[in-house]
Amino acid sequence: MSTHAARLYDRHRPLLERATRACATREYFSPFPETPDRYPDAAEALPRGAAAFEAQLNRPFELVQPGESGRLGDESSPYTGRPLGIDYPRADVDTLFDSAFRAIPTWRDAGPEARTGVCLEIVQALYAELPELVPAVMHTAGQSAAMSYAGSGTNALDRGIEAIVYAHQAMRAIPGEAVWERRFGSTPIRLRKHYRLVPRGVAVCFTCATFPTWNAYPALFASLATGNAVIVKPHPTGVLPMALSVRVARRVLDEAGFDPNLVTLAVDSAAEPLGKRLVKHPATAIVDFTGSARFGAWVEANAHPALAYTETSGVNTVVLDSTGDFEPVARSIATTMSLFSAQMCTSPQNIYVPRGGVSAAGRMMGLDEICEALVAAFKTVASEPKRAASIMAAIQSPDTLGLIDEMRRLGRERGTVLLDSRPYAHPDFPAARTATPLLLRLDTSARDLFCEERFGPIGFVIETDGPTQALQQATADVRAAGGITAFVYSTREDFIDAAESAYAQAGAQLTCNLTGPMPLNFAASYSDYHVTGLNPAGNATLTDPAFVSSRFRIAQSRRPAE
Amino acid sequence: MSTHAARLYDRHRPLLERATRACATREYFSPFPETPDRYPDAAEALPRGAAAFEAQLNRPFELVQPGESGRLGDESSPYTGRPLGIDYPRADVDTLFDSAFRAIPTWRDAGPEARTGVCLEIVQALYAELPELVPAVMHTAGQSAAMSYAGSGTNALDRGIEAIVYAHQAMRAIPGEAVWERRFGSTPIRLRKHYRLVPRGVAVCFTCATFPTWNAYPALFASLATGNAVIVKPHPTGVLPMALSVRVARRVLDEAGFDPNLVTLAVDSAAEPLGKRLVKHPATAIVDFTGSARFGAWVEANAHPALAYTETSGVNTVVLDSTGDFEPVARSIATTMSLFSAQMCTSPQNIYVPRGGVSAAGRMMGLDEICEALVAAFKTVASEPKRAASIMAAIQSPDTLGLIDEMRRLGRERGTVLLDSRPYAHPDFPAARTATPLLLRLDTSARDLFCEERFGPIGFVIETDGPTQALQQATADVRAAGGITAFVYSTREDFIDAAESAYAQAGAQLTCNLTGPMPLNFAASYSDYHVTGLNPAGNATLTDPAFVSSRFRIAQSRRPAE
Repeated sequence: MSTHAARLYDRHRPLLERATRACATREYFSPFPETPDRYPDAAEALPRGAAAFEAQLNRPFELVQPGESGRLGDESSPYTGRPLGIDYPRADVDTLFDSAFRAIPTWRDAGPEARTGVCLEIVQALYAELPELVPAVMHTAGQSAAMSYAGSGTNALDRGIEAIVYAHQAMRAIPGEAVWERRFGSTPIRLRKHYRLVPRGVAVCFTCATFPTWNAYPALFASLATGNAVIVKPHPTGVLPMALSVRVARRVLDEAGFDPNLVTLAVDSAAEPLGKRLVKHPATAIVDFTGSARFGAWVEANAHPALAYTETSGVNTVVLDSTGDFEPVARSIATTMSLFSAQMCTSPQNIYVPRGGVSAAGRMMGLDEICEALVAAFKTVASEPKRAASIMAAIQSPDTLGLIDEMRRLGRERGTVLLDSRPYAHPDFPAARTATPLLLRLDTSARDLFCEERFGPIGFVIETDGPTQALQQATADVRAAGGITAFVYSTREDFIDAAESAYAQAGAQLTCNLTGPMPLNFAASYSDYHVTGLNPAGNATLTDPAFVSSRFRIAQSRRPAE
Repeated sequence: MSTHAARLYDRHRPLLERATRACATREYFSPFPETPDRYPDAAEALPRGAAAFEAQLNRPFELVQPGESGRLGDESSPYTGRPLGIDYPRADVDTLFDSAFRAIPTWRDAGPEARTGVCLEIVQALYAELPELVPAVMHTAGQSAAMSYAGSGTNALDRGIEAIVYAHQAMRAIPGEAVWERRFGSTPIRLRKHYRLVPRGVAVCFTCATFPTWNAYPALFASLATGNAVIVKPHPTGVLPMALSVRVARRVLDEAGFDPNLVTLAVDSAAEPLGKRLVKHPATAIVDFTGSARFGAWVEANAHPALAYTETSGVNTVVLDSTGDFEPVARSIATTMSLFSAQMCTSPQNIYVPRGGVSAAGRMMGLDEICEALVAAFKTVASEPKRAASIMAAIQSPDTLGLIDEMRRLGRERGTVLLDSRPYAHPDFPAARTATPLLLRLDTSARDLFCEERFGPIGFVIETDGPTQALQQATADVRAAGGITAFVYSTREDFIDAAESAYAQAGAQLTCNLTGPMPLNFAASYSDYHVTGLNPAGNATLTDPAFVSSRFRIAQSRRPAE
């Protein structure tokens, strides 16, 4: 191990040990402040980051990597509607793979501790870059400043640390050497054995438009820590956050004495997508994919012989059975379904309600009354512009507005529009692309509408025969269309037991009876397993041992011991 | 956990802990005596097993499992040439899957410790059945009695225990519950979280003709311990060993209060193979495959969405550079290449020799002299009938004799027949299907002959330009055709270093400078990682954490803590 890398490992060992403990106990942990105001020197750092972002606009992004064959870039801000005017290197794909491949041996031979140290130093350097990353995420993904800081910043870095922890543990489980001895007949045989960890090769990491870093960091670090090189393929409408991240990773690798081509960027465009070519490239050993269910399914079926780790999408379900006061339930559901305009893979979409109503505070609330209470809660979220903006933020893709229009039309035909969607006036960005939630009421005959992810601020209240049927329908929909999160409100322990079993089999992570200021769909690093792999919403979990343990292999050599 | 299962876990915990330590240190371990003479009450038990086998001949195999729709069976003994006359239930595939599926919930809900205890009890029961398993393996696979006892008995059970250890560790790494607490704004949120392990579903375990249990036991136990059900699909020419094993597993499961349909047998025939149907069955969640490279490649490419774990075949290589005395080297190579007539996935096939010869005991032995020494060593192995039989045993498939004929013909055309193959007279079984090794000398222009597994007692001496070229050619062949084991003889540390690196990249497990009574290709449970997954010889390792960690998933449920 180089002295520099050894120093990095020593420096970050306390964090590694603390994070390792959190992964085992699943208790709360983060080395980072949760809100931007507590970022070190926030008053100075945040404006400096904003200024750096402004200075980047309408300029080439400086990223020196091999195989540049021209420039491209086509991002525009959901907040201003204006092109960012940033161009990035267009990379020759074969050159990227060749460079990545050549970078691996030194990285591989440096060993697990050196790689762990360097990866944690990259995390630290990304945290230092956070003030510039925040506006980059805002003006590509459309997230609020607070979510850009936490969801795409600190929480994403925590998920990255988590992946490093699991990679470190998986590698440590393989001893470097052993002495083995037994008799064959009367002759003792004594062998010295060496075990070495062999990375798979070059990994391709696809990142998505609305959450560019949250899945990318764990994938990047899981591959990198285990000795592989990584080519990052960002969504063409959201390149800047990962371009910044790749630049940081390359700088840290270089400073630590490693080939920066261990991490490179492959930018493409909607007109000339690179995705399938990267997946089918003969040198691709690992694919991490976050994005659409359609392309995710293609990746899963076609990545072979490369390993595929996917997180796509599904329908996240809410089942209402019974509760105390319904108002805080409605507020939590409405706030969570409004959060980032439901452009999260964990956003609830479908609310299943028994036709006979919901027992609330000892009386039955009828279905109409439930709908009214939900509508009122959604309206409250949208009522105060400053707060509305901090919750709903902006719409990443213009396609989402088209989908809202289509769903409104179909909702009128097939059911009832409980709450219509409209643009809201963002107090800071008058040109922001915005939309308040569309809430439709349907019955189960309209399954073709609700049993599919409708990406964006679109929700369904689905009338069911009763609580048991609500649970059955919801979990059947999860099995069919995928689902990551699920939410149940019930005062009956037997119903909660049944829901826990049903959702465990359907593979959606369940939250019961939660109200209050925590977004229902908040996924805590070190504690919440994200995606089960049991339904079509993805095959990989952030982060379990299976997410890292196949990214390297074990080669051994044995010989007679002296 | 049921009392019975709890007792089993407690009973086997000392073994579990000891085996867990061996997996970590990779030192020698086995709870079983290595040779049949030390089997408990051997003098009584072994004849009793032989008698039980004899009594089974020409009778229906008693296995009561669902969906029986007739009987079938077409095994014959490589030792006697006679049909075994045993028939097995022909199973309706959908019924097997339905029964397996229904058996899972109770098994799943029993939890990791109960399943671990029951799995170790099955191991113990299989060990008790070993006296009957030995003749069953002999008369289907053609192994010697000693190999049937150790390679297909104790060592296979050790690999099974190893899989149970890794499964137990992987499951233990996921806590059952946690309390998580942090503030959102000024509000403390305190959640109690439960994590449950969810098995994938129904696993299909393909077993091969020549080694029916060695890969099957680890696959069976890896799936079973993690909560899945297993349908065993034996090679139609070698059903009996796994039929006995399935019956034992079912009995133990039943006695422990679980549904025996967690383990069932799907017998097919060469005329009506079930393989593809089982792999593509919509309820198949996991496929373990041991067998031909061709079908293995099909499984890897087509199992999706099921997980696929494969071990197929390849070319196992020997590189000669320099040595002390060559005679013990030649003896080790010849003995290992004769062992079970090279019908092992670890048998060496290709010996790469520099044209300029090999430095041995301080002088250069020319290529001709090396060939002569090898031929002499092979002849010695075959010279004494009793010893020859104990090493070479019988040829499992008549196809192998055809392949020997074809290779002899091609060898004469393209190179030299150094040593011809002939039947040898087995002292105990005059009708045994036997063949001594065929050894051909070729140069690298005949790569189409040697760069492919030629299953059976067929070896190649390959002339190369020099030691470096020998290593390059050997590792290139491993990368192209797959390879599990590799063997190098060199007195030069720099050459050994180069070989370790080259084979680690090619993904074959290397043994250096080994001579003496241990077969070169002996793979020790708890110590030797079998198959790297880095070349076409298979994608799964016996046993590393990756072999077990994806066989179950994690579902969670969280709710406000009281």
